[in-house]
Amino acid sequence: MEEKLVQEIPRKSQDLSQWYVEVIRRAELADYAPMKGMMVIRPSGYAIWENIQRLLDRRFKETGHTNAYFPLFIPESFLKKEAEHVEGFAPEVAWVTHGGQEELQERLAVRPTSEAIICAMYSKWVRSWRDLPILINQWANVVRWEKVTRPFLRTTEFLWQEGHTVHATYEDAQEEVLRILNIYKEFIENELAIKVYAGKKSDREKFAGALATYTVEALMPDGKALQAGTSHNLGQNFSKAFDIKFEDRDQKLKYAWQTSWGVSTRLVGATIMVHGDDDGLILPPHVAPYQAVIVPIFKVKDKETVLSVAENIYERLRKKFRTVYDYREEYTPGWKFAEWEMRGVPIRIEIGPRDIKENSLIFVRRDTREKVKINMDEVEEKLEELLEEVQKNLFQRSEKFTFENTRETLDYSELKEIIEEKRGFVISPWCGDQKCELKVKEETKATIRLIPLDEGDKIVGKKCVVCGKPAKHIAYFARAY
Amino acid sequence: MEEKLVQEIPRKSQDLSQWYVEVIRRAELADYAPMKGMMVIRPSGYAIWENIQRLLDRRFKETGHTNAYFPLFIPESFLKKEAEHVEGFAPEVAWVTHGGQEELQERLAVRPTSEAIICAMYSKWVRSWRDLPILINQWANVVRWEKVTRPFLRTTEFLWQEGHTVHATYEDAQEEVLRILNIYKEFIENELAIKVYAGKKSDREKFAGALATYTVEALMPDGKALQAGTSHNLGQNFSKAFDIKFEDRDQKLKYAWQTSWGVSTRLVGATIMVHGDDDGLILPPHVAPYQAVIVPIFKVKDKETVLSVAENIYERLRKKFRTVYDYREEYTPGWKFAEWEMRGVPIRIEIGPRDIKENSLIFVRRDTREKVKINMDEVEEKLEELLEEVQKNLFQRSEKFTFENTRETLDYSELKEIIEEKRGFVISPWCGDQKCELKVKEETKATIRLIPLDEGDKIVGKKCVVCGKPAKHIAYFARAY
Repeated sequence: MEEKLVQEIPRKSQDLSQWYVEVIRRAELADYAPMKGMMVIRPSGYAIWENIQRLLDRRFKETGHTNAYFPLFIPESFLKKEAEHVEGFAPEVAWVTHGGQEELQERLAVRPTSEAIICAMYSKWVRSWRDLPILINQWANVVRWEKVTRPFLRTTEFLWQEGHTVHATYEDAQEEVLRILNIYKEFIENELAIKVYAGKKSDREKFAGALATYTVEALMPDGKALQAGTSHNLGQNFSKAFDIKFEDRDQKLKYAWQTSWGVSTRLVGATIMVHGDDDGLILPPHVAPYQAVIVPIFKVKDKETVLSVAENIYERLRKKFRTVYDYREEYTPGWKFAEWEMRGVPIRIEIGPRDIKENSLIFVRRDTREKVKINMDEVEEKLEELLEEVQKNLFQRSEKFTFENTRETLDYSELKEIIEEKRGFVISPWCGDQKCELKVKEETKATIRLIPLDEGDKIVGKKCVVCGKPAKHIAYFARAY
Repeated sequence: MEEKLVQEIPRKSQDLSQWYVEVIRRAELADYAPMKGMMVIRPSGYAIWENIQRLLDRRFKETGHTNAYFPLFIPESFLKKEAEHVEGFAPEVAWVTHGGQEELQERLAVRPTSEAIICAMYSKWVRSWRDLPILINQWANVVRWEKVTRPFLRTTEFLWQEGHTVHATYEDAQEEVLRILNIYKEFIENELAIKVYAGKKSDREKFAGALATYTVEALMPDGKALQAGTSHNLGQNFSKAFDIKFEDRDQKLKYAWQTSWGVSTRLVGATIMVHGDDDGLILPPHVAPYQAVIVPIFKVKDKETVLSVAENIYERLRKKFRTVYDYREEYTPGWKFAEWEMRGVPIRIEIGPRDIKENSLIFVRRDTREKVKINMDEVEEKLEELLEEVQKNLFQRSEKFTFENTRETLDYSELKEIIEEKRGFVISPWCGDQKCELKVKEETKATIRLIPLDEGDKIVGKKCVVCGKPAKHIAYFARAY
């Protein structure tokens, strides 16, 4: 057993893809299912998702949203009602054709996203301005028949939340879209400790059926961007397709305005990739399944004393922190250190006979490996402080890396060079023409990840980095997952 | 709007089925989806499920279980590995035959339950006695192609939790099966306020592939039983079919012992049916989406005073209770009373100008309609007390009804008469022969719901109520949902 863990995983800096897959396996976050492209989320991975759910769900509820549950299956005819929507999703739908022994008259899509079934219900529920806004979220599984998959980042089935709201005016819908975008940004930065840029997608990159898509984008250690969450202003596209009308205060019948927005288990993948190192995971304390691990260290003669103190510290800490007490005797302390480092526990607490004599214990940070001697009477306060320091440090690292890899240029050959050699985000002016956007993609594999919300007069006098015509936007280009 | 609510729903005592469907619609717990047999769980219904999840998940974690997530799809060949299992479930499986544009080589079952895919993973994960026990639960959706459906009680798709555990010995597995059965009973009685009987299923009624199934059964107001949760000892049936072996401490390779267990959104249906009355839902405070509703009552001249006091009470209460403050001006207090009664909020809090002068307010219980005047300074303590009283009273009612409708007889014609005329549970001795079990079913539509765990020597000297041969068991017969 000892051998298995001491055996090295690939170095993160040398082969991120291989490191990623291996760390997921070794830390038992997920496993491949026997069906192509599907994965099993194991308890250590699912616990991260549960913390994400809890922290995000609280934010949704504080802003007036409630949860509901809509059916897994969507009749094909429903999916077809919004033309762009079906075009975007039909190629990746899994189809149910038989129920029990019978062949179905109409085949059913396993939801790739739920607009089509939710809008069908909203057209029954929305009658009057009094029914608005509708602010519903659902936590659910969705299926997209992907060709190339990678655990957490892109799998045939994944878990997510999808919000679907209905409003009386465009302005109300747009306010909701940005409210959610801000929640995503704040949540990912404060809880997952990942720096993200927020902005708008280009028309080419927007959600199938939306008026406009807003996004938060994170930078992975290999310099590729990862779309971490999206918030769509659906306009009246779906309300017209699904006949969602309401009688307004002026007694006129109007089509409603809608939004939808989601984040998925992909966030677990981003968290793994951004923070880990050559020894395994480093999990942000706010979402780590265990925030601290207690490892007692003793020789036979001290065993009783040390275990009794460790047990006592455990009982104190578990009241307030997600704590694990590793009292197993079949493993050495060294083996345990390596295992819990692999699993990314933010703080290791070592308790040995000498520490006990001094009424102290040792905290070891996973992020910096720094050791701190702590007075036993202050263990709760000090742990709380140190966890917050780790959380902050992880975010600062991510932010620093992201800033260092965000470059501006007005010159197309420099843009190409940066994308080819350094990766990261390249900020350049853009005329707004899809031709230029496509040219960049073909020549560099980079896409427009976002257009910042505050571009304001930064574009005044600027010229498109590709064609030289007057710029309409500032664009963040990057290769992406 | 007023009309819509004042309009009567069917009386519960006269037509339970119609009352059930109507109360679900009026209280907006669920709605029919456009696909046959599928439902949408609306926010008011889903909030009950969220409370169930929270309270049950806590119990699972306290007993050492963790959550994980396994794929939605199960290859047909996996489902076929355990012979009884596939026979039991194949007739009600929804089949995915196409992914994107391609026809699949092997069709995939949308999980009707997850033994087949989870066991496939366990056969990879289990190697040594050190890996045991595995105590995993998942919260998931499942699909069973049902012919006759009813919201919450039986739908094509439903939400549930399914625990799947692996143990080194039969004894460990059996201990787990009964531990979970006890958790289910305690949870349903204490949190949902529904009396249940716990026991073992007859072989005819057990889970497809199990060695033995244990069950908790509740009695609905029409005298029909409802299976509320099951816990299965799978023996080595699945470990042999899926090759789940471990090296034991004695270095011998052995097949593992397994359990599985689950409860579903059916519990929401049971809660609605057991407690409601002619005016709508009555929800147990522990799982009610709102535990209290504040309704301010005022004439124009008192408006400011009353709203400011009501607002203040709301701010105090929401810190500790799930509280809603109904300050809407477009509805009368009378309309609001009827609406919140329909929605089953356990306590209504009325605040009017006279109450304010006396520094008091009025609590109205939903279960007994009793009004109590409360000193405003004690509102938190009194609300907490009264919620517990309501919770207890609901359970006592359910228990009383269940006991009153549980009858013993040694005589077959009396058994038939009770089932026909009074319904409820009939307790009678049984020889253990499936022929007698089937005869009762054919002649009365009643099945053996359970065999009590403590039958002990109650059977000594007793004769089978059907054939007169020596009894092997005490059986609880009832018609069931």
